[in-house]
Amino acid sequence: MRKALLTAALVALPVAGFAADPAEKIVEARQGYYSLLGANMGALVSMVKGETEYDGAKAQTYADNMLTLTKYNLGHLYAPGTSADDLPGKTRALAKIWEDPAGVQEKGMAFVKAVENLDEVAGLDKADLAKAVQELGGTCKGCHDDYRAKD
Amino acid sequence: MRKALLTAALVALPVAGFAADPAEKIVEARQGYYSLLGANMGALVSMVKGETEYDGAKAQTYADNMLTLTKYNLGHLYAPGTSADDLPGKTRALAKIWEDPAGVQEKGMAFVKAVENLDEVAGLDKADLAKAVQELGGTCKGCHDDYRAKD
Repeated sequence: MRKALLTAALVALPVAGFAADPAEKIVEARQGYYSLLGANMGALVSMVKGETEYDGAKAQTYADNMLTLTKYNLGHLYAPGTSADDLPGKTRALAKIWEDPAGVQEKGMAFVKAVENLDEVAGLDKADLAKAVQELGGTCKGCHDDYRAKD
Repeated sequence: MRKALLTAALVALPVAGFAADPAEKIVEARQGYYSLLGANMGALVSMVKGETEYDGAKAQTYADNMLTLTKYNLGHLYAPGTSADDLPGKTRALAKIWEDPAGVQEKGMAFVKAVENLDEVAGLDKADLAKAVQELGGTCKGCHDDYRAKD
């Protein structure tokens, strides 16, 4: 009886809508991860370019957010069956990601190091922020060039 | 000259596509955040319901991911001008969110506590996981009921 009640409660959970197509849901969450990274990166780039005023506290928050995201375990977001070959038009993640884990790992580590460096300087100085953002952008591009389809 | 080079490099960053419509980009990132939460929650719910086998290590990773996401500063994702009134059809975030910060904060703290509790038990025991997931689901629903449009 208790188990039946629990099951009924779980069915009614707000996550009940998930997994209509599990692979597409994974892609949606994966793109969500990079959308979050991009929102913080974009805000920092705007400060560096002078489109918004440099604000050390805000810059630190954006950098902290990116650092927090590096602690997220991405494994489940790269489940097999979620490449651009599997889901054409839904994702630009090349099948090469799953064929070259060591290469992906190397690019990922460069990204994490660049975020760690960013987080150390973002709140202190605009010029240092600019350099760190540029270096970080290079690590984003490094992965996109090799593992993401152009369109 | 160095500044010109830096600016050129920043313009070429992979984030250059951001902020075509800044408010919609924020909504996209906000939905990304909840999509990530949902992907981890959904995987745990599947284990509890027996759709997938309980795996303590995997359950712990999902719970850790959710705990990591509670460290993320959501402030920028709730920028003014990003409610369902501002962007009809793009988001279900009710304007009440911005009018009742104390109420939102209270619901948010209940959510964080439930995730912390989940993270303590997820890897240890399926029955404890089930209870923690159910409690956590209640805190999700608590916020959705009050601050999210039905459709």
